[in-house]
Amino acid sequence: MNVKEKQLYYEQTPIEEPGTNEVLIEMSCVGICGSDVHYLDKGRIGDFILTKPMIIGHESSGIVAKLGKDVKNLKVGDRVAIEPGVPCRECTFCKTGRYNLCKDVVFLATPPVHGSLRRFYKHAADFCFKLPDNVTLEEGALMEPLSVGIHACKRAGISIGSKVLILGAGPIGLVTLLVAKAMGASKVILTDIKQDKLDTAKELGADDTYLIRQGVSEAENIKNIRELFGDDPDKTVDASGAQSSIRLAILVTKSGGVIVLVGCGPPEVQVPLISAVVREVDIRGVFRYANTYNDALELLASKKINVKPLITHNFKIEETVAAFAKTKCESGVIKVMIHCK
Amino acid sequence: MNVKEKQLYYEQTPIEEPGTNEVLIEMSCVGICGSDVHYLDKGRIGDFILTKPMIIGHESSGIVAKLGKDVKNLKVGDRVAIEPGVPCRECTFCKTGRYNLCKDVVFLATPPVHGSLRRFYKHAADFCFKLPDNVTLEEGALMEPLSVGIHACKRAGISIGSKVLILGAGPIGLVTLLVAKAMGASKVILTDIKQDKLDTAKELGADDTYLIRQGVSEAENIKNIRELFGDDPDKTVDASGAQSSIRLAILVTKSGGVIVLVGCGPPEVQVPLISAVVREVDIRGVFRYANTYNDALELLASKKINVKPLITHNFKIEETVAAFAKTKCESGVIKVMIHCK
Amino acid sequence: MNVKEKQLYYEQTPIEEPGTNEVLIEMSCVGICGSDVHYLDKGRIGDFILTKPMIIGHESSGIVAKLGKDVKNLKVGDRVAIEPGVPCRECTFCKTGRYNLCKDVVFLATPPVHGSLRRFYKHAADFCFKLPDNVTLEEGALMEPLSVGIHACKRAGISIGSKVLILGAGPIGLVTLLVAKAMGASKVILTDIKQDKLDTAKELGADDTYLIRQGVSEAENIKNIRELFGDDPDKTVDASGAQSSIRLAILVTKSGGVIVLVGCGPPEVQVPLISAVVREVDIRGVFRYANTYNDALELLASKKINVKPLITHNFKIEETVAAFAKTKCESGVIKVMIHCK
Amino acid sequence: MNVKEKQLYYEQTPIEEPGTNEVLIEMSCVGICGSDVHYLDKGRIGDFILTKPMIIGHESSGIVAKLGKDVKNLKVGDRVAIEPGVPCRECTFCKTGRYNLCKDVVFLATPPVHGSLRRFYKHAADFCFKLPDNVTLEEGALMEPLSVGIHACKRAGISIGSKVLILGAGPIGLVTLLVAKAMGASKVILTDIKQDKLDTAKELGADDTYLIRQGVSEAENIKNIRELFGDDPDKTVDASGAQSSIRLAILVTKSGGVIVLVGCGPPEVQVPLISAVVREVDIRGVFRYANTYNDALELLASKKINVKPLITHNFKIEETVAAFAKTKCESGVIKVMIHCK
Repeated sequence: MNVKEKQLYYEQTPIEEPGTNEVLIEMSCVGICGSDVHYLDKGRIGDFILTKPMIIGHESSGIVAKLGKDVKNLKVGDRVAIEPGVPCRECTFCKTGRYNLCKDVVFLATPPVHGSLRRFYKHAADFCFKLPDNVTLEEGALMEPLSVGIHACKRAGISIGSKVLILGAGPIGLVTLLVAKAMGASKVILTDIKQDKLDTAKELGADDTYLIRQGVSEAENIKNIRELFGDDPDKTVDASGAQSSIRLAILVTKSGGVIVLVGCGPPEVQVPLISAVVREVDIRGVFRYANTYNDALELLASKKINVKPLITHNFKIEETVAAFAKTKCESGVIKVMIHCK
Repeated sequence: MNVKEKQLYYEQTPIEEPGTNEVLIEMSCVGICGSDVHYLDKGRIGDFILTKPMIIGHESSGIVAKLGKDVKNLKVGDRVAIEPGVPCRECTFCKTGRYNLCKDVVFLATPPVHGSLRRFYKHAADFCFKLPDNVTLEEGALMEPLSVGIHACKRAGISIGSKVLILGAGPIGLVTLLVAKAMGASKVILTDIKQDKLDTAKELGADDTYLIRQGVSEAENIKNIRELFGDDPDKTVDASGAQSSIRLAILVTKSGGVIVLVGCGPPEVQVPLISAVVREVDIRGVFRYANTYNDALELLASKKINVKPLITHNFKIEETVAAFAKTKCESGVIKVMIHCK
Repeated sequence: MNVKEKQLYYEQTPIEEPGTNEVLIEMSCVGICGSDVHYLDKGRIGDFILTKPMIIGHESSGIVAKLGKDVKNLKVGDRVAIEPGVPCRECTFCKTGRYNLCKDVVFLATPPVHGSLRRFYKHAADFCFKLPDNVTLEEGALMEPLSVGIHACKRAGISIGSKVLILGAGPIGLVTLLVAKAMGASKVILTDIKQDKLDTAKELGADDTYLIRQGVSEAENIKNIRELFGDDPDKTVDASGAQSSIRLAILVTKSGGVIVLVGCGPPEVQVPLISAVVREVDIRGVFRYANTYNDALELLASKKINVKPLITHNFKIEETVAAFAKTKCESGVIKVMIHCK
Repeated sequence: MNVKEKQLYYEQTPIEEPGTNEVLIEMSCVGICGSDVHYLDKGRIGDFILTKPMIIGHESSGIVAKLGKDVKNLKVGDRVAIEPGVPCRECTFCKTGRYNLCKDVVFLATPPVHGSLRRFYKHAADFCFKLPDNVTLEEGALMEPLSVGIHACKRAGISIGSKVLILGAGPIGLVTLLVAKAMGASKVILTDIKQDKLDTAKELGADDTYLIRQGVSEAENIKNIRELFGDDPDKTVDASGAQSSIRLAILVTKSGGVIVLVGCGPPEVQVPLISAVVREVDIRGVFRYANTYNDALELLASKKINVKPLITHNFKIEETVAAFAKTKCESGVIKVMIHCK
């Protein structure tokens, strides 16, 4: 399923032969991510620019159809979740465990690399994670956004007793909520500018929510959020990228606490940085994730978290155009899942 | 309630006046700990030796009866949990957040410091933690053993995805289980030499248990435990202190994993330390705890964990002799709670 | 030595009696800090506002003249460095080792607390650090700014192999240089807008320096600094507080690296935060310091670093007005030291 | 240069063709390690058993003679240090930055993998580190033992102010000394049972040394070492593996401190583990190293440390038998270097 000049279209491509350490996968589920929509609509995300048609899709799972000759961790028929970024394995980032920062990573559906929304796709075997019987292929595809939540919560250092503020109740805000609770956070509160998203957060286990209304001052929002916590939050995750959210994060987070910025925001922001400096509130970014798929699998297999309610709509691969329309236009949508088979 | 030459007896003592930063507490609940029994039976624990009668009790809660003149964090009538060790606040350990290592700590029921099993007792106000309405005084007293579990799990670095082996299913093993699950551990397995203790562990949420039988070899135990995990455990907490347990911990823990030793064991042990060395399995001790009471309170107030089933027996302070008899002699006992009022 | 409405004047005050855990100190050396000048000139720093005359001075050392009755770590005649902030010892920040964030800290020469530029001054004994014979009282006073450098380098996580960029070659930039080298940094480069400060940095051991010239673009500065390092710096310490420096720090620091902000800057800054977010460059503030005096003492006593060249001018306490004039007006000044006796 | 049944002998082997991401290296320097001697004498180290002749050597450097077709980080003629273990790059250990624990690592001169004491040898290009002009090939070979010291010091968490006790003044003890000083340790003291080794340590910068004499009690050794430090050491590195050293490490290390065990010791030891447990002294093993070569290179290129005095004897490859004889038999030997060309 290619994107090109705001168009989605099908194309027949040959089925690839897996390399020595690769597997061929018959694709099952591919979730639509905001970035997929962005490439379709804008043709770029930051410095990643579409210069030719690109197959989209990177939140995906499938069934192993063929093994490269040295593959030992999988067998034909295994149901797998696909970690979409395969790093170079040779640079210092890769060798020190931070392979998400690898400059030579090959990441699905990031120009010029094609994505996985197709019938067959080959991938490095060690970046395919075998799903146990009690984890569905839909859940397998959701391990990708879930990984962002895991990486964010780890970067935040969430543990028992954490009071977590999550700014933005979209898919990333929601998976962060689920992971934060699983890590033992004692109170998790989400904010958003839309009440229906907050209602969903509540249903998914948020201890409380706070609607950001137009015309309410920064100071008032801070005061109200503190009242909800009965304290200052010590961990704040911004999943919106908005300047107003980053400002709020800086001002409301407890001295000595941590802010994690996940959202992709504007190139420049005006912020009261000094408030974080003199109160030693650390600011940490999140770029994708590294070493999260095993954790995601443990969370799902042990039933610590339930991501199924995140899937609000399902489409066949033939209905991809409709699936994108649904993703973009309507409220009540959290995650749209495309079924390839 | 004093201990002296294997005897327990009552004594009238004057009600003390709280100092500037202290509060007088009308005592409510005091749990009996193995160390209390030990002082009664043996008159010593390691280098701490009873040279004169000592009031016992250090797992305790009560109601604030009187305030020292500078106390601001509490008011008369507040229900509080008592953190039993008040450190010097001046040494490097205190200043760096590891006040449990303070050499001048004043710790309840550790010779020559009296304990809290009495009607009235005064304590540093900042080591009293106000209980919210939804936490009982019994739970407040249990925050002490719970703190050991919290400290052990933090030292182990337990988080989502952890596979935790707990050796010993006594009170400390059980609170460690509860905390490990709250921190997101995906699988927690307990071992013990008594099946009834393992049954209790199962009821409290253990994913599995393993009975250590006489005559079974070390290698077989390791093999069996690995099978239960479907892997090696990456975090092992020894809550027994036995040489055989420490050996097992060293041999079974995953390369790069962590062993936490909580149990108070023999002065010398013979162990295959080289196995931990060449596989970089870290070995960390636990001595009491520091900065755990806020976490304990969050866990209880948020209903993340339920410690109530740990209290198997209740006695009035007048029945303390019977309470100790129960603690020592019968199976089915986890925690005996004495009510002072 | 009081400051009041832009005036410095002497005043006779009674010699205080040390409390139980305090010592009376006959003051020896007091360094002038930018904040002292700021209070004199502006009457405030941020929310700290002078509403009545205040004795200044907080970088100081002296000789113990009298002991409070419970003091055991010192004796009369001991030469001591004075850590100027005494925290409450009771809040969570104090108990977890981050006492610099204590809201109730009593910090020298921070309104309404008087400073130490006087003949006699009493202080908490455990915040006085005995100087060994091979450390002078002048060095003792310099342990205060040195502590800021230590805290900054620890927050940055500097160790062997670190490539450290320090923005600003004032006293804080220079002590950060000394500490970074002592921690094993392989290359330390300082920037400043004044060449003479960079010359000093070079003399003190900077591996290289870079002059920030007006009219040179951000991109050009980044390119030039990278060339000097032969790489990206992985640790950047901003000791200037200027928006342009913070911007540079964000853009030039290596992916996965750390920026530490020490400088007190404007209430709001406009910054390309997204560049730090997507490259996971952590941003950490520094507010004073905690648990640094022992390290400072070790660095000085072991001759790992030499801070003596930082003292460029010396004055008697009677010449304080001239000392301040020197601090404010002339180039070639790093640290002005006032001798109280 | 092969080892076989206690014999060393030469053999002609074909020059290998470098793979895609490999380089062919014309070997320059190979240091003799205790493990090489051990394989020669005993035919095994632990579970690694010689079942057929094996080329020895793993502390090595050389000159790039030919490039695999995808190699970009090197060019023919580059002088390189060789990191001898190439891990699988696919397991969790590799992905999380702890590739030294990789079960499928291919490590030079560890059966059944041949070593590098030959004229030509091919190696993964990203495990070859280009030496700058101011680092010699001899130093390049020494980066291997130096790496063990770096890994040990990092595992110990050595930084400014550390008081470091190193047990054993052989090559590993000595490189640990050099690295500890470079990281800012304020006092480093070495022990050994041979005075000449301690003399060498003193020459290399040890602040003090302590001779372990037969017949002196454990308690007396502890007392004497504490006196030398004027305190307890907070970081202890055992580079001997002897039970008596591990015991001493446990007993003498400061509460809350760290013991790092580098030495390969007996299968079982009898130790007073409880002393470490109740004082929260962490025990950490070291197995080879990971991500140390860049640091080693920075230390050497910046002249932070000088490893040249460690090379006490030089031999040509044709004199290998004599080189081994020298290594084994005589005092005054630290490191014997074999020159392949």
